[in-house]
Amino acid sequence: MNSKALWGRYKKYLCDCPSIGMTLDISRLNFADGYFERMEPGMRKAYAAMDALEAGELANPDENRMVGHYWLRNPERAPFPGIRQEIRDTLQAIKDFSLTVHAGKIYPRKHARFTRMLTIGIGGSALGPQFVADALGSHADKIRPHFLDNTDPDGIERVLAEIGDDLADTLTIVISKSGGTIETRNGMLEVAAAYRKKGLSFERHAVAVTGVGSKLDKLSEKDGWIARFPMWDWVGGRTSITSAVGLLPMSLQGTDIQGFLKGAALCDELTRTKETKLNPAALLALSWRHATGGRGAKDMVILPYKDRLMLFPKYLQQLVMESLGKEKDLNGKTANQGIAVYGNKGTTDQHAYVQQLRDGVNNFFATFIEVLKDHDAESLEVDPGVTSGDYLHAFLQGTRNALYENGRESLTITIEKLDAQSVGALIALYERAVGFYATLVNVNAYHQPGVEAGKKMAGAVIKLQGDVLAFLRKNAGKAYTAEAVAHAIGADENDETVFKILEHAAANRDHKVTKKQGKNIFESTYASYASPF
Amino acid sequence: MNSKALWGRYKKYLCDCPSIGMTLDISRLNFADGYFERMEPGMRKAYAAMDALEAGELANPDENRMVGHYWLRNPERAPFPGIRQEIRDTLQAIKDFSLTVHAGKIYPRKHARFTRMLTIGIGGSALGPQFVADALGSHADKIRPHFLDNTDPDGIERVLAEIGDDLADTLTIVISKSGGTIETRNGMLEVAAAYRKKGLSFERHAVAVTGVGSKLDKLSEKDGWIARFPMWDWVGGRTSITSAVGLLPMSLQGTDIQGFLKGAALCDELTRTKETKLNPAALLALSWRHATGGRGAKDMVILPYKDRLMLFPKYLQQLVMESLGKEKDLNGKTANQGIAVYGNKGTTDQHAYVQQLRDGVNNFFATFIEVLKDHDAESLEVDPGVTSGDYLHAFLQGTRNALYENGRESLTITIEKLDAQSVGALIALYERAVGFYATLVNVNAYHQPGVEAGKKMAGAVIKLQGDVLAFLRKNAGKAYTAEAVAHAIGADENDETVFKILEHAAANRDHKVTKKQGKNIFESTYASYASPF
Repeated sequence: MNSKALWGRYKKYLCDCPSIGMTLDISRLNFADGYFERMEPGMRKAYAAMDALEAGELANPDENRMVGHYWLRNPERAPFPGIRQEIRDTLQAIKDFSLTVHAGKIYPRKHARFTRMLTIGIGGSALGPQFVADALGSHADKIRPHFLDNTDPDGIERVLAEIGDDLADTLTIVISKSGGTIETRNGMLEVAAAYRKKGLSFERHAVAVTGVGSKLDKLSEKDGWIARFPMWDWVGGRTSITSAVGLLPMSLQGTDIQGFLKGAALCDELTRTKETKLNPAALLALSWRHATGGRGAKDMVILPYKDRLMLFPKYLQQLVMESLGKEKDLNGKTANQGIAVYGNKGTTDQHAYVQQLRDGVNNFFATFIEVLKDHDAESLEVDPGVTSGDYLHAFLQGTRNALYENGRESLTITIEKLDAQSVGALIALYERAVGFYATLVNVNAYHQPGVEAGKKMAGAVIKLQGDVLAFLRKNAGKAYTAEAVAHAIGADENDETVFKILEHAAANRDHKVTKKQGKNIFESTYASYASPF
Repeated sequence: MNSKALWGRYKKYLCDCPSIGMTLDISRLNFADGYFERMEPGMRKAYAAMDALEAGELANPDENRMVGHYWLRNPERAPFPGIRQEIRDTLQAIKDFSLTVHAGKIYPRKHARFTRMLTIGIGGSALGPQFVADALGSHADKIRPHFLDNTDPDGIERVLAEIGDDLADTLTIVISKSGGTIETRNGMLEVAAAYRKKGLSFERHAVAVTGVGSKLDKLSEKDGWIARFPMWDWVGGRTSITSAVGLLPMSLQGTDIQGFLKGAALCDELTRTKETKLNPAALLALSWRHATGGRGAKDMVILPYKDRLMLFPKYLQQLVMESLGKEKDLNGKTANQGIAVYGNKGTTDQHAYVQQLRDGVNNFFATFIEVLKDHDAESLEVDPGVTSGDYLHAFLQGTRNALYENGRESLTITIEKLDAQSVGALIALYERAVGFYATLVNVNAYHQPGVEAGKKMAGAVIKLQGDVLAFLRKNAGKAYTAEAVAHAIGADENDETVFKILEHAAANRDHKVTKKQGKNIFESTYASYASPF
């Protein structure tokens, strides 16, 4: 298409959304004229499904739950007065708590004020808080954020070393909807031990965000933690950023949560329109449908040209992949749906893998995210009349054109400026686009049946480890091959896992297992030097 | 396959590499027996091509260059005595310089010692240094590292705000092989201005790593920077981590660069064997060939179960995608090769997108990276007899099994412990696997013809911006639509880009352009309030 025709296409399809300071350009996707008309029946279904969901339908059938993240930005829309009240009360409680902490009225035992916070959570309880902390934080944050999102002891120690003696002034927020997430529980135990080691009370530095009545909720109540904030069963982890999960850390950091909620609410309002061409969430979903053939045939590469948005692709990895990556469709047929998402930021990624995007396997479509306002400060001229921000902008245009020239599709989201409101809108835009797309390809976006298997199998490994170690301890001083251990404990079917357990145990002193190298790795023997008990 | 048979397959194919403390398990890829025999002729070619490369062949034909990153770890193998001497001299110079800086003999003007360093570079001059700084650094670093890798003015300001008044004690390292990378040049100019603003001399805080005779080399010589270290035309950016690009920041940070080089050298030595079953780089390349069909049909998902390795997937994105993502094969035929790479870390990613990996579109193969030694410190028991590290290990096994159960392929790299030596080995392993794979699919891994187009097009945007702004300034006070401006400057073919330029200019005060909203976005008008000159 020549540039005049492209400009016509650009003008024809540009979705201009002044209420959220955003435009969506889909002109560089090569759908034919008439595509949207053809897809309109599908979109009708998607609108109806979304209406039902917003009205309180049990949209998560596995867990028999409503899906209410849209109510969080507009409690009026919640189907029950009790829910409306809970949303409002919790928001108020978050604001009050933050003010009290900022004012030093809630303070650590040894000092006047909390200066840092350590958020412990994983998945939906980590990706959102991490993204917005990075996108909206600054050196002037009221409280400096840190995060723990794994059960890696070395990783935990590293974060604690970074905090150092400031642990005394650190508020720890433990976030787990179920209250039983192992990684989060382990992080909490490790951090509690670190407080104790420094002679500090963990409980007097701890806040919980969790489901009412959960294990964590009960623990925090029993031990007298500073505060507890509720999670609700009608909010899914990957869409929990506008609940206490996201709002509490943001508010403590000093971010404008009211603006954030407003941006999300405005975007929700806008994307409720059933006029598809005016609905950026619908256009986004239909763009994905076009690019991927509705079966994940292409990866979604997210390229925000803004350092502050670097974690957004990671946030979308969860939102998109966990929502859409489903085995069965709504009719119970095997569908193996999903869209793979990756990306970091431009221009940086241009120097990493745009070579492949432009020349290599054409298995993706790109999403450029452009922020018009470069910064608040005065700009330096890096060439006569040219700023660093001009270059950032030019590199985006150049890469978009270079991809198009080689037949690689892209879409572009342009945001006037990056602030709490526009980030809230951006998140809400993708939440709804994911919901629409799920209906278009006939899957349920609000459950995650596939994540249990790995957890269960991990539990079995931990149990087997107990058996392996008990056997070695009982026979302390005697050396066995992995196969011999497996046989002895009646785990012949688990040779490989027993081998893995022994290799891991022998590399760490915790379990007092030594390894003697054999002629080859499988003839190595392992022995316990623990005293039997 | 039942677990007994799987264990047999595990034992049969495990590549045990004690010299680098690593095993490679490919048993969970479903290649048939006989696959390796069938691929042996291809591997013969790959070995021969690698031999020729290591002997100094002009393996980058576009730029008529040798490709010598393997010599950096074993200068004896370099084909010319001059190169051998340069490698040795530069390594010595890096060590001497670091010692001198650590001892405070080279020091900032206002204080006794450099305490921070700011590395400015992008792509091959950023991803390696960032990865190793994160993987091997600690709170006890001799010098604390910071990075600039973009031309985002807000991003630059954020890093400078983080450094704050410590800029006076900050050593800035500018890395650009060509000495002409725009983003790096802009970063340097912004940082130099920041030093000046604080009354400090940039030159007395600056070190250059660049090609001898480059623009940057000449500038740094003329302005009397503290030091200059050479890059050579026979080292590609994405394989430059064992040159001064990687070694200088590592050494200043306090990392054991000798161990790092030793790990890489040991891995190089090991992977020179032409006995495929004993060569982990060959097995890796053949695994990719199997999983992707030799045409990028599946994505490479990298899942290191270790926080310190979180940037490794990003490092591999460049190494793999820029090397393999090629339009033409070696015969000049259109091939559109490549393998898409993404991933962050386990278990974290389990809570983000393992739902899709297990249940969704089967368009990937997973690479688990396991580190046997959890940490140095004493472990906490999070359950009776169970540590956080045991859970990390169990989650990896559980997820690997859960993927296998659903027919998703994976391979597993196990490392005894994470240190400079093993990280060096890991990098060298992937460098060679990429080289082998390129021969298997008949592309050149050592050029990047596709990255120029975007840069050139960006340059055209900057030029057009100059014309647009000059026109508005000449007609200051008068308002024009984007189309009118394009027409007036003879850029009718560039309406869209002119529109983009005006939208960006109007969102920033730098160019003194105001925007008046029209009936629709395309009827908006723009005017300059600058005085004409």
